[in-house]
Amino acid sequence: MSMQHEVLVVGSIGLDSIKTPFGEVFDVLGGSAIYFSIAASFFTSVKLVGVVGEDFPKQYVELLKKHHIDLSGLQTLSGKTFRWKGNYGYDLNEAITLDTELNVLANFNPQLPDVYKDIKYVFLANIDPELQLHVLNQIKKPEMVVCDTMNFWIHGKRDSLIKTLQRVDIAIMNDTEARELCQESNLVKAGRIIRSWGPKRVIIKKGEHGALMFANGSFFSAPAYPLEEIFDPTGAGDTFAGGFVGYLASCGQINDIDMRKAIIYGATMASFVVEDFSVQKTSSLNQQEIKDRYQEFQNIVRFGE
Amino acid sequence: MSMQHEVLVVGSIGLDSIKTPFGEVFDVLGGSAIYFSIAASFFTSVKLVGVVGEDFPKQYVELLKKHHIDLSGLQTLSGKTFRWKGNYGYDLNEAITLDTELNVLANFNPQLPDVYKDIKYVFLANIDPELQLHVLNQIKKPEMVVCDTMNFWIHGKRDSLIKTLQRVDIAIMNDTEARELCQESNLVKAGRIIRSWGPKRVIIKKGEHGALMFANGSFFSAPAYPLEEIFDPTGAGDTFAGGFVGYLASCGQINDIDMRKAIIYGATMASFVVEDFSVQKTSSLNQQEIKDRYQEFQNIVRFGE
Repeated sequence: MSMQHEVLVVGSIGLDSIKTPFGEVFDVLGGSAIYFSIAASFFTSVKLVGVVGEDFPKQYVELLKKHHIDLSGLQTLSGKTFRWKGNYGYDLNEAITLDTELNVLANFNPQLPDVYKDIKYVFLANIDPELQLHVLNQIKKPEMVVCDTMNFWIHGKRDSLIKTLQRVDIAIMNDTEARELCQESNLVKAGRIIRSWGPKRVIIKKGEHGALMFANGSFFSAPAYPLEEIFDPTGAGDTFAGGFVGYLASCGQINDIDMRKAIIYGATMASFVVEDFSVQKTSSLNQQEIKDRYQEFQNIVRFGE
Repeated sequence: MSMQHEVLVVGSIGLDSIKTPFGEVFDVLGGSAIYFSIAASFFTSVKLVGVVGEDFPKQYVELLKKHHIDLSGLQTLSGKTFRWKGNYGYDLNEAITLDTELNVLANFNPQLPDVYKDIKYVFLANIDPELQLHVLNQIKKPEMVVCDTMNFWIHGKRDSLIKTLQRVDIAIMNDTEARELCQESNLVKAGRIIRSWGPKRVIIKKGEHGALMFANGSFFSAPAYPLEEIFDPTGAGDTFAGGFVGYLASCGQINDIDMRKAIIYGATMASFVVEDFSVQKTSSLNQQEIKDRYQEFQNIVRFGE
């Protein structure tokens, strides 16, 4: 039997107001740490580090507890919870941000409870790379550090971001971000450039085109699940990371095939989250639905020897 | 042992002048029927239908003969061979056409030699859909008709194109073309729309993102081969079709897995052709190189059960 690890995640927690061609919601549960935690909770135990305001609804705290997410690292500060308001057009490729209110996130200074400091598996969700590093510095002996980022930090804090990347085992970002970070349109080259900064593996997410993983001597291409309707793409990347890191943490010893399986579990969870707003779909999944969709991915790529 | 079929292709034959960030060539062998024929010739016998002018270099005729391509259907008309001149920028996504001289192609009226009319496997390469239909009408009992097209016909002859599609078994086009033809950004939906017009299978090529195949009850996602340099993308689509149809024709009976294998052979051939100008790389391949790269595709997609 393999040893299962717990996962620590640090990232944003927010209340999102979203409009897509299929509907509209106000102040629903969102944020990178949330999407990650719910997805990862199907594979292992999650310890969350984040901040909310006094207005954070109790029902959302209950939802996280229902998924056995450890909230010892959740700070509640006086003031309002981070809010994001965005729209998607018919192609659903990119969110148009209408409004961002940082609120309590502006003063977020993540301090890990002592019981969190022995954690081995860490996911640094999309927040300021300086905060990512600040969290990482509090962990005694991390064994597997995975990070995500976004264009905002690539443009605004490129040097800090590269410093963070030097400390991580696996970097995850989307294709546009990889191209911008590396100033290189060829993704194979971009994958090599990012690896040269430190990460042993780089995962490039390509939305409807699936994902690529670059490692020393191994290249993996994962398909996307064929969805005719993307109800709301918000949180797809963080949910992918949740399935990916959650599965890895559940493995104990990890080889290249485990890494590939983990990507498919990430893609599986991401294919669910976009079927509804917020974490409505992922928070109500069962293990059999996850296993069934994982198997569908096998059917999507198999061909003869 | 399965019965091997011959393949008939009708399409353009041209002399291309191409400039990419890696080099420049003048009046080299090109055209959809050429790229297709060379690739398909590694799998089965090819019968070519096309037109050239009196200036078509003898060395190119010799090259085609070396690949055992049947040239009974090659017309030589008085005048000059079709010429295309294009450039590619650093992202190599789309050719910028600098000049097109139709020359003898303007008066092309494909007449099949009698020995061609019993053919079972047909590839209608990218030419005027009315010419595609005109060729198809001359074939007595085609068993497998595959066609390609391009934006030019989608904009200019949409109705004729849809008439041709009603008569084909497998339609191949790229993602931009599928989206434009169907006025639909979601490729899964576009695949369904095109299938509703007649083709039992639709293959959507996505360049660096691989290819998708849609069929009744089967969805296949093929990866792209991870190339750091694309020397010249000209002819990649027709070469893909050559590997695809050539392999199918070599199978005899065809099931869904054969279709998937055929796509990977198409992707294999396409990954070679972009490594050099014109058909320089594909025309000098050997069977082992093709098999080895096909196997590499297995390594790119495999993950655990």
